Amino acid sequence: MKVKMKIALLFLMGLSHLVLAQKNDEAKIEALIKKMTLEEKVGQMAQITLDVVGKGDDVYSSYDPVELDMDALKKALIDYKIGSILNTANNKALTNEHWYEIISGIQKVAMKQTRLKIPVLYGVDEIHGATYTVGATMFPQQIAQGASRNRELVRKGAEITAYETRAGSIPWTFSPVLDLGLDPRFSRMWESFGEDPYLCTQLGVEMINGYEGDNNTVGDPEHIASCLKHFLGYHATISGKDRTPAYIPEDALREYHLPAFKAAIEAGAHTIMINSGIINGVPVHANYDLLTKLLKEELGFKGLVVTDWADIENLQRRDRIAETNKDAVMLAINAGIDMSMIPYQYEPFCNDLVALVKEGKVSMERIDDAVRRVLRVKFALNLFEKPTTHYKDYPKFGSDEFGKAAYDMAAESITLLKNDDNVLPLDKSAKVLVAGPNANSMRTLNGAWTYSWQGDRVPEFASEYNTILEALQNKMGEKNVTFVPGVSYKDGGKYYEDELDQMEEAVKSAADADVIILCLGESTYTEKPGDLNDLYISENQTELAKKLAETGKPIVLVLNEGRPRIISRFEQQMNAIVQSYLPGNHGGDALVDILLGEVNPSGKLPYTYPRYPNATISYIHKPSEEQKKAEGVYNYEADYNPQFKFGHGLSYTTFEYSNLKTDKATYKKGEDIKVSVTVKNTGKVEGKEVVHLFSSDLVASSVTPDVKRLRRFEKINLKPGESKTVDFTLSPEKDLSYFGRDGKKLLEAGAFELMVNDDKVEIDLSE
Amino acid sequence: MKVKMKIALLFLMGLSHLVLAQKNDEAKIEALIKKMTLEEKVGQMAQITLDVVGKGDDVYSSYDPVELDMDALKKALIDYKIGSILNTANNKALTNEHWYEIISGIQKVAMKQTRLKIPVLYGVDEIHGATYTVGATMFPQQIAQGASRNRELVRKGAEITAYETRAGSIPWTFSPVLDLGLDPRFSRMWESFGEDPYLCTQLGVEMINGYEGDNNTVGDPEHIASCLKHFLGYHATISGKDRTPAYIPEDALREYHLPAFKAAIEAGAHTIMINSGIINGVPVHANYDLLTKLLKEELGFKGLVVTDWADIENLQRRDRIAETNKDAVMLAINAGIDMSMIPYQYEPFCNDLVALVKEGKVSMERIDDAVRRVLRVKFALNLFEKPTTHYKDYPKFGSDEFGKAAYDMAAESITLLKNDDNVLPLDKSAKVLVAGPNANSMRTLNGAWTYSWQGDRVPEFASEYNTILEALQNKMGEKNVTFVPGVSYKDGGKYYEDELDQMEEAVKSAADADVIILCLGESTYTEKPGDLNDLYISENQTELAKKLAETGKPIVLVLNEGRPRIISRFEQQMNAIVQSYLPGNHGGDALVDILLGEVNPSGKLPYTYPRYPNATISYIHKPSEEQKKAEGVYNYEADYNPQFKFGHGLSYTTFEYSNLKTDKATYKKGEDIKVSVTVKNTGKVEGKEVVHLFSSDLVASSVTPDVKRLRRFEKINLKPGESKTVDFTLSPEKDLSYFGRDGKKLLEAGAFELMVNDDKVEIDLSE
Repeated sequence: MKVKMKIALLFLMGLSHLVLAQKNDEAKIEALIKKMTLEEKVGQMAQITLDVVGKGDDVYSSYDPVELDMDALKKALIDYKIGSILNTANNKALTNEHWYEIISGIQKVAMKQTRLKIPVLYGVDEIHGATYTVGATMFPQQIAQGASRNRELVRKGAEITAYETRAGSIPWTFSPVLDLGLDPRFSRMWESFGEDPYLCTQLGVEMINGYEGDNNTVGDPEHIASCLKHFLGYHATISGKDRTPAYIPEDALREYHLPAFKAAIEAGAHTIMINSGIINGVPVHANYDLLTKLLKEELGFKGLVVTDWADIENLQRRDRIAETNKDAVMLAINAGIDMSMIPYQYEPFCNDLVALVKEGKVSMERIDDAVRRVLRVKFALNLFEKPTTHYKDYPKFGSDEFGKAAYDMAAESITLLKNDDNVLPLDKSAKVLVAGPNANSMRTLNGAWTYSWQGDRVPEFASEYNTILEALQNKMGEKNVTFVPGVSYKDGGKYYEDELDQMEEAVKSAADADVIILCLGESTYTEKPGDLNDLYISENQTELAKKLAETGKPIVLVLNEGRPRIISRFEQQMNAIVQSYLPGNHGGDALVDILLGEVNPSGKLPYTYPRYPNATISYIHKPSEEQKKAEGVYNYEADYNPQFKFGHGLSYTTFEYSNLKTDKATYKKGEDIKVSVTVKNTGKVEGKEVVHLFSSDLVASSVTPDVKRLRRFEKINLKPGESKTVDFTLSPEKDLSYFGRDGKKLLEAGAFELMVNDDKVEIDLSE
Repeated sequence: MKVKMKIALLFLMGLSHLVLAQKNDEAKIEALIKKMTLEEKVGQMAQITLDVVGKGDDVYSSYDPVELDMDALKKALIDYKIGSILNTANNKALTNEHWYEIISGIQKVAMKQTRLKIPVLYGVDEIHGATYTVGATMFPQQIAQGASRNRELVRKGAEITAYETRAGSIPWTFSPVLDLGLDPRFSRMWESFGEDPYLCTQLGVEMINGYEGDNNTVGDPEHIASCLKHFLGYHATISGKDRTPAYIPEDALREYHLPAFKAAIEAGAHTIMINSGIINGVPVHANYDLLTKLLKEELGFKGLVVTDWADIENLQRRDRIAETNKDAVMLAINAGIDMSMIPYQYEPFCNDLVALVKEGKVSMERIDDAVRRVLRVKFALNLFEKPTTHYKDYPKFGSDEFGKAAYDMAAESITLLKNDDNVLPLDKSAKVLVAGPNANSMRTLNGAWTYSWQGDRVPEFASEYNTILEALQNKMGEKNVTFVPGVSYKDGGKYYEDELDQMEEAVKSAADADVIILCLGESTYTEKPGDLNDLYISENQTELAKKLAETGKPIVLVLNEGRPRIISRFEQQMNAIVQSYLPGNHGGDALVDILLGEVNPSGKLPYTYPRYPNATISYIHKPSEEQKKAEGVYNYEADYNPQFKFGHGLSYTTFEYSNLKTDKATYKKGEDIKVSVTVKNTGKVEGKEVVHLFSSDLVASSVTPDVKRLRRFEKINLKPGESKTVDFTLSPEKDLSYFGRDGKKLLEAGAFELMVNDDKVEIDLSE
């Protein structure tokens, strides 16, 4: 009790400190706004990319190594009063020293040569570590973190990323992604925590707390402002292609897509980025209902709303709902955008917005609201006092300690999908043939947003880390490890282009091996370049798998991919399957430790792994997707038959579930539901298990209910023979309610099922 | 002028006659309703399937040949006052004589032994001819009719079907399908006219006029009542599976899905069937907004609203939005359902509905409205006076004249997709190898809903017609035609199951052939049994195509499929490709006449033929689906690259388009837009060409506009060297307006493009 009280007290003190600080800031902000000209205000709402102010032939690139072009910088900061810059230059990572030089150079102009001396807000997509910083610690990508189900490791990873981001003088990351990764066709599925709203909510909040610190003390030089992406429903497109239209009815918007954002806003996240796509015909960047009524008014978001790349001009150029750039600016700013990620041609944005205000088409109130939000972030980050942080103050940058955290996350995320006849773990003295295009690639282990946008520059920067092949050689000895790729990605090709590379030799080499480790998957991609037309894993990789299978040697298939590519053409011939996702720089080591049994795998799929390309429905679906046989001649049948289900993941030990129960059979509204279940390690090695609690509403009155929904999860560690009882508390209001057809929340009496593992218990909620 | 006036007069006389007749009917209906007990009213709202009253072991099947079980019939008609029966028995076609016996037997009980002597309304899915009548004329399925673009032939086919349906004493067909066939994954795409709303509207109205006759004189013994299917948005599911959830925002509902239904209601269609699926979370059968507010109130539909198979009980059993069957009945009837296609266990429906009325949960007004609509159809069909029609009065049933109409439709629908080096037409004296599972099958030529639900009983009934192989043998001589299947559908298997069948022999036989005619596609299916997981054409068929291609012989690929199965794995090795769709009993003959050049092909794709399984967007899409490269490093690119585009279709001659123009450059609202274009036959043979006129709204203010939309089409015939100028008249209000985000219709000033073939002209609509 005492300890708890102390924590509560500290918490309250922290909060009141924050409230005071905020009050103080608000007064400064209002004073500053009063002094600002219209042009200065509009400048605060503009964000450009670094190349625009880098020395170079044009705004799209810079000479390498990048240096500031002082004329260009002064034009942007002094003439146009630009308030924010993003991104690296030349699409390439910089050292901390170089970052310091660039950002302090920018801040000098902003804070010494502009009239009001407002610091620039610098932002970078630091999505699994400090993306564009040489030597930074690269964690597994978010999809893998979703598989870990480990809240603490997610938070720790974000804390380290915040620290390393600040080591490069950068105070703002465009992370986390809170979109649901519910479409395996989508090129950014791997940037999400997976397909479940509860999972995304839980891990999203941990990541924000890691970035922003307790009480969102982002002025602290070891924390940074986070940016929630991409408000709202970004991955839920009809065609599966990036930045394309989605249809989302009101109930689905609130039931699935909103919860993680709502929780993140309640957790104090400072900024939010808008979905580049189109919902129900309306580009989200022009949607007043979503940006102002829902986000700012209903959810009470007080932070900064930033566009995604070029998304105001996209309203005209791409979506054709504005006739001119000026109309596009008017639509977006009036919808609720506070800052435009322009990113190149900033003059039209600034000139048009100034003109729109003068013409009365955008109100000064709207401009002040936007500027207030921008300045709020700059004050919260303490940029007026401390516009840069210095790499010398960050001795742990790139340290082994941090590397260990990334390794731990990889080790807890890698997911054992299949292990026939316990072919895994491998005998350390076995002779192995390693094959496949992902076997010897740091690039594919990391994925995109690593040293460069599409990940193509990973080889320049990650040679000190171990590929899967290198990690195997280190642990098993080079002589026991033969590598013949069989298939390789095309050098300089598109992400989906691969080619045969010693296929016959790979097959021949199998003869000398005890086991084949076949590393398949995808090369790296994100956004439009990652659009997909065919979810099957490539033809060449399929052929390699089939030919190796014909040798009769046991095959361990290691998947290294951002989204679940279909493997049903050869899955049955694989003896074991391990999903590594995009495990980062330490992923090769973690994977090999799992293959060799030094680490017992504990990852669980954060998505549904489909069996066929046109059967991609997630585990959250309506009963009609798995309709049972009906009576009579019209014996309709539907199959819901994925390759691997959401939550699937094996261990080297076995767990037995028993005694699932609730404290009562019938509950009143407002009454807690206590659920417990006992889990026992019945195998021979220590292991971690994720206990998932699902619920199912047996009848709903407004919309057809989902077959089941994840409500709680807990990851526990059990020694051989050990048992633990896991307790969950559900609230009917939060966990058994749903959003009805008009987006209204409903809690209805009646029967519900609660499910853990294969066990069920039914409860009743009384009127 | 004189002739025109006379026609107008006759038309008005016809109309006034109809209005009088209807007024007269309405009085009778009201008088009858006044006499009816609640139980009698509820019975009128109930529909059962024939097996329920057929002699047999249970309600699900009957002894063969089917005979009426008089006890069961009396229980249904007298005790439960059932008002409607549907379907055949034992899922098998009957002769006209047998139909007469069954239906007159039913009507005798209804009209002699029931208190009020109300005839039974008998309905059957006569969707491409009289589906369940032995010897009926089987037309190409609707998707092929969409490819024909021939309004006159569509109407003629429906007239013949009406005649042949009445020959079997049946007065009501569940046709046409007005759903958009926009999803190639969907098992019923082929039951639609294709993916375009205008095409579906135009041909839908023709089909209704064919069925119902001028002025909808369905009491005429050569016409029948039509049934619009499936109100609304049935094919637009998220997962692509039958009877699963769809998300459809208000603007899309009205812009794409509603127009064909609206036009069909204006054309006087007597009945409508409801979508079995779920829109925006709500099962359509429980959706008051769609069934009552939109359909009955806004569109003013006065006819009968019938459920699809078992869809009231599906509200409970499948969709879980009702706790009991009684709740399900209440939801559906209060939503606006007039008749429940129960089809087996009718007692609960009747008892529950009677109880609901007594309890005040369903109003008597609602019941009377439903009964009024049911009776309206019975009176309109003149069933009280003439409850059956007699086969002796239908001498043209199954005649050559009718067969010729079916042949003509096949000949105008079959679509030449590719013809490299003019490999087609074939030399009549060539030696051909015929291969593939669709080469010698009447079943696959017809598709489902032919003699049996899934089409599996076609072989029993269609042996007198020619398969592709037989038609080739007839025209080319048996000695010039070698048949080795290579792959065959599994006997008794699911639609997607095929197996190797003399594959090696097929490849060997190619050596002796001048050309290979490879007939690939699908076996027959509809509804849930036709659900698809993988849009690629089967592995075995792919292998056959690849192996035959390796022989180096020219290959003519004949596709015979209900939906466009992906062929990109071998398309490049095919020299010619002909899409036959599901061309019906005369399709083999028509196809062969095209292959041999006796008929010049003129079909045009009614859908987009995808190249990859995860790239299935239709030609109607938003600009972001084919986004152009942007500036700078983030050079997003999107590909819209189908295998064959909507409207594609080659000819044996060539057409040159010229002189596309409008009568003015700027139009006011309310002013007609006259568009003309000249088309010349520049080749050596006579041919038909479909001229498509598309429009594109360059900027829209409410929702992002479609890239282009079909507004008019006209099929013309041209002799070699002949030119014709085709004139179109567009109305800004009808053709350039769109539905905005709240479902409101908008007509906005600004620039529009009009496109014919590869030519464009820009016009302006002034304020």
